[in-house]
Amino acid sequence: MPDTAPNSWEARAESSSFYGFTDLPSVKARGTVVLTHGEGPYVIDTEGRRYLDSNSGLWNMVAGFDHAGLAAAAKAQYDRFPGYHAFFGRMSDQTVMLSEKLIEVSPYDRGRVFYTNSGSEANDTLVKMLWFLARAEDQPQRRKILTRKNAYHGVTAVSASMTGKPYNELFGLPLPDFIHLTCPHYWREGQPGETEAQFTARMAAELEEVIAREGAETIAGFFAEPVMGAGGVIPPSAGYFQAIQPILKKHGIPLISDEVICGFGRTGAVWGCETYDFVPDAIISSKALTAGYFPMGAVILGPELADRLHAASEAVEEFPHGFTASGHPVGCAIALKAIDVILNEGLLDNVRRLTPRFEEGMTRLAENPNIGEFRGKGLMGALEAVADKPTRTPFASNLSVSERIANTCTDHGLICRPLGQSIVLCPPFILTEPQMDEMFEKLEAALTEVFAGLKAGA
Amino acid sequence: MPDTAPNSWEARAESSSFYGFTDLPSVKARGTVVLTHGEGPYVIDTEGRRYLDSNSGLWNMVAGFDHAGLAAAAKAQYDRFPGYHAFFGRMSDQTVMLSEKLIEVSPYDRGRVFYTNSGSEANDTLVKMLWFLARAEDQPQRRKILTRKNAYHGVTAVSASMTGKPYNELFGLPLPDFIHLTCPHYWREGQPGETEAQFTARMAAELEEVIAREGAETIAGFFAEPVMGAGGVIPPSAGYFQAIQPILKKHGIPLISDEVICGFGRTGAVWGCETYDFVPDAIISSKALTAGYFPMGAVILGPELADRLHAASEAVEEFPHGFTASGHPVGCAIALKAIDVILNEGLLDNVRRLTPRFEEGMTRLAENPNIGEFRGKGLMGALEAVADKPTRTPFASNLSVSERIANTCTDHGLICRPLGQSIVLCPPFILTEPQMDEMFEKLEAALTEVFAGLKAGA
Repeated sequence: MPDTAPNSWEARAESSSFYGFTDLPSVKARGTVVLTHGEGPYVIDTEGRRYLDSNSGLWNMVAGFDHAGLAAAAKAQYDRFPGYHAFFGRMSDQTVMLSEKLIEVSPYDRGRVFYTNSGSEANDTLVKMLWFLARAEDQPQRRKILTRKNAYHGVTAVSASMTGKPYNELFGLPLPDFIHLTCPHYWREGQPGETEAQFTARMAAELEEVIAREGAETIAGFFAEPVMGAGGVIPPSAGYFQAIQPILKKHGIPLISDEVICGFGRTGAVWGCETYDFVPDAIISSKALTAGYFPMGAVILGPELADRLHAASEAVEEFPHGFTASGHPVGCAIALKAIDVILNEGLLDNVRRLTPRFEEGMTRLAENPNIGEFRGKGLMGALEAVADKPTRTPFASNLSVSERIANTCTDHGLICRPLGQSIVLCPPFILTEPQMDEMFEKLEAALTEVFAGLKAGA
Repeated sequence: MPDTAPNSWEARAESSSFYGFTDLPSVKARGTVVLTHGEGPYVIDTEGRRYLDSNSGLWNMVAGFDHAGLAAAAKAQYDRFPGYHAFFGRMSDQTVMLSEKLIEVSPYDRGRVFYTNSGSEANDTLVKMLWFLARAEDQPQRRKILTRKNAYHGVTAVSASMTGKPYNELFGLPLPDFIHLTCPHYWREGQPGETEAQFTARMAAELEEVIAREGAETIAGFFAEPVMGAGGVIPPSAGYFQAIQPILKKHGIPLISDEVICGFGRTGAVWGCETYDFVPDAIISSKALTAGYFPMGAVILGPELADRLHAASEAVEEFPHGFTASGHPVGCAIALKAIDVILNEGLLDNVRRLTPRFEEGMTRLAENPNIGEFRGKGLMGALEAVADKPTRTPFASNLSVSERIANTCTDHGLICRPLGQSIVLCPPFILTEPQMDEMFEKLEAALTEVFAGLKAGA
């Protein structure tokens, strides 16, 4: 029950917040959790309650909530140069160094980097870049953007239009020109008797059909997360990117890898496209890019798109687009440190080292008769609840099963995320083995409690 | 001439940057200015050159480039809690405190705050809120957004669609449903013999006509900057907001004040709407909100919109929108300090104290035969160059007059901003009188040099 005293943190939060992505009945029943600080992968609230955050904040706090090196990098830059922009041919030295570093760690031997403040802005920006390029290259009809159902690309009106979630209908989205293909989730979308290879071939055939139906000359780009994140941690079916990339190439449609979640180590490699063995035409980065210490997104253009876009901009003297805080020196200094911490101070190594233990723990939980599937890659995974395992039948949505599980976990000091009928885990890269064991123990207790309650008709 | 040695800062910047809002011929001819640090209102580049930044970065670094109190607030929060989100009914204590503070300093006795990472995202978010509200209230046809020509509301595809600038055609924007009214700039848009009062009445009549033509029931909102900023510092004609607000009210169309530039002191009051004596239905804030020390935007909903939107969200259990770094604890701690510094540590007082000296200096420069108009409010002003003063005839655009002036200023250690045919000045609120005198002396020298060169046919 929330504390309703007018000066309580819960009442203060409720009085002036407009809540986003928040179940309002839960806030009414349980109150807002107001957090004051963190320790490693734990966060602590105003009542001193301690939670193991198996979400890494929102996938982003991969170095935990009190990383001394990252704080030191931020503080040093606040003393040195606490803010500037990147317009009018001026930018900070940190911005120059980060762009060099991003190209160095990218799959490209050269390219160009454009900064934003979020993954949403980065996807929105790249759509604008593709529309700009199409007009500059005398193909103004090239407007359509292909993504997939369950994809998550952000919340600006355009990046929400790319996102393949039903809730966007509440805004009258998607806008025209945004087309969602089938989600390449073999377990859920595969047909009876269809092998995974046949399923992948069907996904590729659908892409060919959509391109033929719409006209290749009307399509500006295809955006995909290597592993879908907020759609519920959905890895592609085997061979998916190898099947679709040649089709896109044949029709001159750029393939963009949205690495907001996968990028910088989550899947066990620097990039998700590395894990799935393809080289996209551009990369969208955010989240782990600053380990969540600063809002930042980046569009990393591979050589071909960089050259064509630079030429198109030179032809009209400038690319008329940019955010006030694009390339903020503090964000860039933090990102330089975050990349170093992930690649050179053992975080990526730890993801690789922990992955087998993570998979074992998830596989064990998936033996529960009400868990239909464990899926994941590296340190991201989901367990999908089902009412009936053999037929993969979901629970009735009004039972709010995943919310019940997540709320029960919260009561026991574990934060995890309900997504559809799934529970998602994506712990910080600094996790220790005992912390991982704690995570699984608490989740298992919650699963047992909730499923028993459902069976008892609670 | 740029330094072309491969390890020079200029070559390194050019090699991997995709430049936004940057004149590429200038970068080619002059090289990128790479900045390393700042002192008060000055920034210093890698060569040790020192520039008085009369733009406050991008209107935002109002406390200068080395404010000890702001840096201390940022550093303390990095030690305390360096990152969290505001989803799922969880948020940091700093987020709660900032929302309370924003309502306290707003024109509202109560309301709700939603955080973004930029002004672009805040405008985009409020458009989505209005679309969401329209559908929830069974008026799905209420989609159209009214703004004005020369308005600047951002660069996401939707906020760019709100922006009334010709360059958006390069992207195939605006999207449908975005309508731009006449810019209320009496000097440029007034008709021969028309008084300012008649001009304002004409602007109001145009609004009535557009509403009648489109249908009031199709219009979701009207967005306006109190003083247009990136349009070239354009204050409204006298009585403008008093003329249009009753029309909007009569038709049930919310009036939104985009205070990204005006908010937190620029016009000599906390809000631009305070300076122009109107109370909008919602406020968009960014830039000075954190004094440029952190990327942040805020949608501040007045009581009526807050109640209607909260009810609409409760009806579907949640408002499915939010950015990963919405309400970031470091940004909120910085904003709390920035608001305190501006309101209680003399910055707003200094704006008021300096305004008469600023207006005197600008008025004196406007006596130049090639300056057609000085316009402005508080510590923001523009000087508009003209080839012929009596007829207000602009220079040929291929002469790039304002770019020449700005580049000449840069050569003399003053950063100012070319906007169309204008030069814009919006210095930090911490400026001293000798620094203001230095600003005007350098600008005057550049005006003399450039106009003499043009007369000589250079």
